[in-house]
Formats: sequence, structure tokens, C-alpha cells
Amino acid sequence: MLLSRYLLPVMKETPADAQIVSHQMMLRAGLVRQTAAGIYAWLPLGLRVLNRIASVVRAEQDRAGAIEMLMPTIQSADLWRQSGRFDAYGPEMLRIKDRGGREMLYGPTNEEMITAIFRDCVKSYRDLPRTLYHIQWKFRDEVRPRFGVMRGREFLMKDAYSFDMDEAGGRASYDAMFTAYLRTFAALGLRAVPVRAPTGPIGGDLSHEFHILADTGESEVFFDSALDDVDLGDPDAPAKLRNLYAMEAEEHEKIADCPVPAERLAKRRGIEVGHIFFFGTKYSQAMGLQVQAKDGSQVTPLMGSYGVGVSRLMGAIIEASHDDAGIIWPESVSPFDIGLINLRVDDPACAAAAHALQAKLEAAGRTVLHDDRDARGGEKFATMDLIGLPWQIVVGPKGVAAGTVELKRRSSGEKHEASMESVMAKLTA
Amino acid sequence: MLLSRYLLPVMKETPADAQIVSHQMMLRAGLVRQTAAGIYAWLPLGLRVLNRIASVVRAEQDRAGAIEMLMPTIQSADLWRQSGRFDAYGPEMLRIKDRGGREMLYGPTNEEMITAIFRDCVKSYRDLPRTLYHIQWKFRDEVRPRFGVMRGREFLMKDAYSFDMDEAGGRASYDAMFTAYLRTFAALGLRAVPVRAPTGPIGGDLSHEFHILADTGESEVFFDSALDDVDLGDPDAPAKLRNLYAMEAEEHEKIADCPVPAERLAKRRGIEVGHIFFFGTKYSQAMGLQVQAKDGSQVTPLMGSYGVGVSRLMGAIIEASHDDAGIIWPESVSPFDIGLINLRVDDPACAAAAHALQAKLEAAGRTVLHDDRDARGGEKFATMDLIGLPWQIVVGPKGVAAGTVELKRRSSGEKHEASMESVMAKLTA
Repeated sequence: MLLSRYLLPVMKETPADAQIVSHQMMLRAGLVRQTAAGIYAWLPLGLRVLNRIASVVRAEQDRAGAIEMLMPTIQSADLWRQSGRFDAYGPEMLRIKDRGGREMLYGPTNEEMITAIFRDCVKSYRDLPRTLYHIQWKFRDEVRPRFGVMRGREFLMKDAYSFDMDEAGGRASYDAMFTAYLRTFAALGLRAVPVRAPTGPIGGDLSHEFHILADTGESEVFFDSALDDVDLGDPDAPAKLRNLYAMEAEEHEKIADCPVPAERLAKRRGIEVGHIFFFGTKYSQAMGLQVQAKDGSQVTPLMGSYGVGVSRLMGAIIEASHDDAGIIWPESVSPFDIGLINLRVDDPACAAAAHALQAKLEAAGRTVLHDDRDARGGEKFATMDLIGLPWQIVVGPKGVAAGTVELKRRSSGEKHEASMESVMAKLTA
Repeated sequence: MLLSRYLLPVMKETPADAQIVSHQMMLRAGLVRQTAAGIYAWLPLGLRVLNRIASVVRAEQDRAGAIEMLMPTIQSADLWRQSGRFDAYGPEMLRIKDRGGREMLYGPTNEEMITAIFRDCVKSYRDLPRTLYHIQWKFRDEVRPRFGVMRGREFLMKDAYSFDMDEAGGRASYDAMFTAYLRTFAALGLRAVPVRAPTGPIGGDLSHEFHILADTGESEVFFDSALDDVDLGDPDAPAKLRNLYAMEAEEHEKIADCPVPAERLAKRRGIEVGHIFFFGTKYSQAMGLQVQAKDGSQVTPLMGSYGVGVSRLMGAIIEASHDDAGIIWPESVSPFDIGLINLRVDDPACAAAAHALQAKLEAAGRTVLHDDRDARGGEKFATMDLIGLPWQIVVGPKGVAAGTVELKRRSSGEKHEASMESVMAKLTA
């Protein structure tokens, strides 16, 4: 991609209304623009990151056997009356009347709708267990939207719903999602702590929140540092992790005798990015979902729901991975693999070398953002550091004459001259 | 994908409330379920098709140099007051008040928002021309939603917006999208006719609708059959196509002397799936979008907008490509490449052969839906014909003993016995 034909409106100044670093950097790096309070447009660079985060989430859902579908954003109030939540949900639900005066709402979550669809589509034990998920925009009418996409009103969420014939099956489905979440955060380059959580308005008796560790996080968590030693490939990992101590500060402080020895107790700041629930028959019973069991009897399936904030994760990743100069994207979600700077666009040899390198890297499957603008070197370096691509290649006249470029690793700042061939070999290995 | 672990709720009966064949087949084939009037959930198989249609649309937008971004679904009424359309738009706009009493709406289109974003981000002629697009859910509160996803209320649309410094540039951007649309429909296996259209509430002086030819279409179009002879690779294709006669019946009948000789005049039924507009400074002027020209003066950019109904296209494809037994997907959008039927799941040799074939085809990059359910052969054949995958492979005990399977082409119905090796070679070439 040529930057001269792209849309990347970076800002030199830190916007005054952005309080936290991820919000500041998302605006400055041209990832998003606010279009109304708590509602954002995703500019081209931001959309690329959002899609890559969604892809990582999707891959781990698929690996866990969940099946993707897509439910609409606008729901009928009637559905929520069946569960009793329409009146109970409170002012965060965006309530709408259509032209016919029918009560509708912009879905903040989908327990009711998926239960109704499953009730409509599935009649037999043969079609259970199933875990279904979708990645769709949600709306929660926060009284005070803030922190950019971290507490926006319109946000992208992956929510999954499991249906099982019995308690043991339901707990196995919960464990599968528990593991999928930890794998997802690991694949995103994040350290996550699963914290036992109250179930709140979703209901049920088993629930965990996942907190991403970041020094600028809004929450504070205490946990047994043995958490880091559990191998996610171990089938017993969910059980092991659940048995290890992890609490939000508020809950931790209520506990007189913490069971973790002081030398193993870690205290870190975090950002909640996921929340999972096993709530049994709460919705299936209220909404009359039953399936026929093998013996011919009618059984009310047990359900769980599993949410992760896809747009929120972008903020969390930036909180966890940045420096003074800008964002440092993990390779798994970076909008481009490589930033290519041509220092002298008016020099035919530099231009030819830069275009040739871009073409070769792209032919090898790498994504490249090529800064071919007529701008000063300092501005180009600052922009590349700000937008945080993992690798930078700098093409200049001296190097081109010698057949070399400068290669810089964004995360370490380490840079060195190298031949074009060795750069190609390194970046396409 | 194993069908025994999937969610594919096919229906044997034709739903009484579905009037047109695409609506009937989308329900029967388990692609969608209605969740409220004119609002649909996309079941797993339907989502796969929707994503593939969107990918074809995206590829042609990218090829035309358009840049993808993503605008939110909920917009502020203030934006639409700047263009004067908030009061003008009528009852199809879903109007919403948030918890603070602020007037919002669910976007039916995005001219206002993109103009505001461009105004905020772009200040110089250096950043023009640009065409930006997004693929996002829209809502139009139809008074009588019908025909399934063909006239739904919540629907997926690709809408693009061009920004140019002058009239000639604006017309070139229009031509690029005109060509991109024809390429898109060709890639989807559809025959499309561009029809000169009135500009309506979007405004402007140049507009075309694209009608997909289908015998069950809602519109009737008259056109010069020389349209089929224009090569889309020809740079003059847009001009040539625009000069050839094509009219909706209503307009055609008003014309006393049709310029096309009777033997060249074709009359066919069609379905409108795209609409493009060049409207100059209508929105940029109303909303105060100006950029600095090379000579330092302030210029009001000229704009166009370009919409195609992504979810509607699914209905149009089915209208254009089906038979009595079900859907016949073009290869470019089929939810899976191959349907694999095991006729005897209780026979270890059949099961082993079917699983091995699935694994080999998937390893070669083909997508496979493997019917491994404990069900009768007739039901499996009927389901595969209904869901319309391009190829069917039938594994049965006699064939397995002889090392053969049956291979069937869905579009022609042609079938023959073949060795597993030759089937692999044919389907992975």
C-alpha cells in the first residue's frame, strides 16, 4: 500500500479530551475518529487492526469447535419480555420504537435471541452439544462514555453461547471456552489473568472475568503467580487455573487469610476484556427451550455465554504495548507487517529500489505500508514509530548506492544496515 | 466440517409466508431465520455465503483503488441536520433517542458521516482523489418488509464515497466504480445491466442502477443486447456501456422512438442490486468541506456515492441460479466447495474412506461439508441438492470395496463413478 494514496490522518498534538494513553494513541495514529459521544468510525488503519484481532478471536473459537453465525443488531422487545429482562435491563439498553410503534432495541447481548433461534431450529439431543458464536456490533448506552473504544457505546463483541444436555456437558463447554480465551489472549501477545467473578445480571453460578495485565489498567488484581506456569496444552489446564487464587482488589481485601504465600502473591493492574458465564437453565427454562432426549423425554438444555470485547481489546493491547513514541503492535494484529520509508522520493534510484522492495515483500505475502510521500525524513520516522508496525525499512540514497537499507525493529529500537537480500530473507522467512 | 457437529436446520416444507423462490430456499436450506419483521439472523451456512459475497465485492473495490474503513451504525441527527436530510428523509429512517434525550438514527446511508470525517481528516489537494468504502449493516424501516433479505429492514450494504478536485476527476472516479460493479457481478456469476437512473433523494445529475437478470425478478428492463459484447478490460468500457440503450420498462414505454433496432432490443426481468451517483458538491458544500488547492485557493471537492446490497445479492444469486431441487451456488460464493455424503456411517470402511477423503480435500485447501449423520440416503441427497454446493461426492460400501466414489456436478446433475485418486485430482486442480 502506498501511503500517498491511503488515508492516515496522524495528529502531532495529543487531543486534550483523551485521558488514557490508548485513547490518545488511537486518535494520534489515525486509527479512529469519534463521530458521536462514545461512537467511533474506524479509519483504514484501525479497521485493519480490528479485523486482525477478530481473526485471532475467530480462529480460537473455531479451534474450540464453536460454530460462527451472525445475529442482527436490532432485536424485538418481545424476545426480552420472554426472559423478563426487558424491564430489568436498565437505561444502558438503547430502546427504539419503529415506524409501526413496535418496541425494539439495539442488542447489548444476545442470550434471548440465541435461545429463541435454538428453540426454533433444534429439537433433538442429536444436535447437542453445540456452541454458537457471532462477532457483531453491540450498543450499551453508557451514561458517561469515556476512554475511547475502552468504554464506548457502539462496540464490537464476540459472544458465544453453549447448549448442553446435562451439567457435566455444560461444564465441559465452559472449560473449552475458558481455554479458548486464554489461548486467544496469548496469541494476541497479552498476559491474561482469569478472575472468579460474581455473575450479575446475566445470572448463574459460575463466572470468570479475564483481565489483561497493563500498568495503566483500570482494575487491580491479586493472583497466585503460579498461574504463569500452567501449560494451556494440558487438558487439565482449566481446572488447574480455576483452583489458583486470583481476585480483584475489592474482593481480595475482604479476605482475612489469603491462601497464597506472600512471595507467590502478585499484584498488578489490569483491564477486563472478557467475561464468561455458566448459568444452567436460566434462559432455556424461561423461554421454553426443550429438546427430546434419547429416552424420548423432554430436557431443558443448560447454557453458558462467553463474551470478549473485540474493539476493547485494541485499547487493551495499546495499553499493554507502547512507548513514548507510539504504539508497538504485536505481530499477530499489526495493520501492516512492514513500514517502508523512502527518504528521497525525488531520487529515481531510491524510488525504484523502494518500489521494487515493496513488490518483492508483497509477492512473498508480507503486507507493506510504503511511505512514498513528499515529506521530511523526521516526519516519516515519527509517523512510523507512532503507528507501531513491527519492522521499519529505510531506503536512502547512500544505502541504495551500496545496495543496503536500514532495518529497524520497532519493539527494541534496534537498527542496522543490511543488504536488500538479507532483509528480504529475514522478513520473509 | 462434519454435519453431525454443525447447525443446518433444513425444512422439508416450503414456508407459507415466503412468496419468492429465494426467500423460500433461504429458509428451507437453513441459511437464515427471521427474528423480527424484515430482520434476519444468518445461520452458519448463510453467514459463509454472505462473507464470500462480501469478499468478492471487497476484492473489486480494492482493485479499483478504493480504501476500506468502517463507520458505525448509529449516527447523530446533528450530522443530518447539516445536510438538511434529517427532516427530509421520511419514515424509512429509524429515529432513536438515547438516554440523554439526544436524537440519533440508525444509518440508512452514510453521505453525511463520510463528508464530516473527510472534512475532519483531509485539508490538502495532496490527499485527493480518494474513494473510501465500508461494508456495514444499514437499517431502512420499510413499511412492508417482504421477500426475505431482498427487502429486509436490517441489511448489509457496501457503500463507497469518492472525493475529487474537479469534474473530470469526479467522472473518472464514477467510471472506476461503474467498472468495478460490472466486474463484481461477473465474478459472482451474474449477468448485470446498467440502467440510467433518476437520482432521487441522494441528488446529483448522473446515476445508474444495476439490474441482475433473473426470470423471477421484480423489475423489467429493456436493453441493447450489444451490452454483452463489451469487454470489461477495455478502458473505454464504461463510456461504451453508458452509450448503449438500457431502460426500466416504465421509462422505456415513455419513449416514442426507441433507438435500438427491434432485433437487438432485449427484454428481461431483473433485480436491482446496485445504485451509483455522481452528485458533485451537494454534500461537500452543505457541510463546509473544503481543501486547499495547489495554488493556495480553497476548493469544494466533488463527490459520488456507490452502493451495492451485499445481503440482497444473496437473494438475487438464488433467483438467478436454482432449480426445483434447490440452490445452485456459483463456485465463487458457495458456502463449501464440496458436499461429501457417507451413505453408511455404521460401516467402518465407508467411514474411514469418507474421513480420509475429507482430510485430503481440506489439506488441499478445499472446503468440505461432510454428511456423517445417521440418516437415510434419500434425505442426504435431498439436503445436498437443496443447499446447492457445486460438487457432491457419494461414498458407499460397493464403491469403497472397488476404490471408487460417485461424483456429481450440482449444476448439470451429471454424475459418474470415479476412482478416489481421479476425484482428488479433479477437485484440487
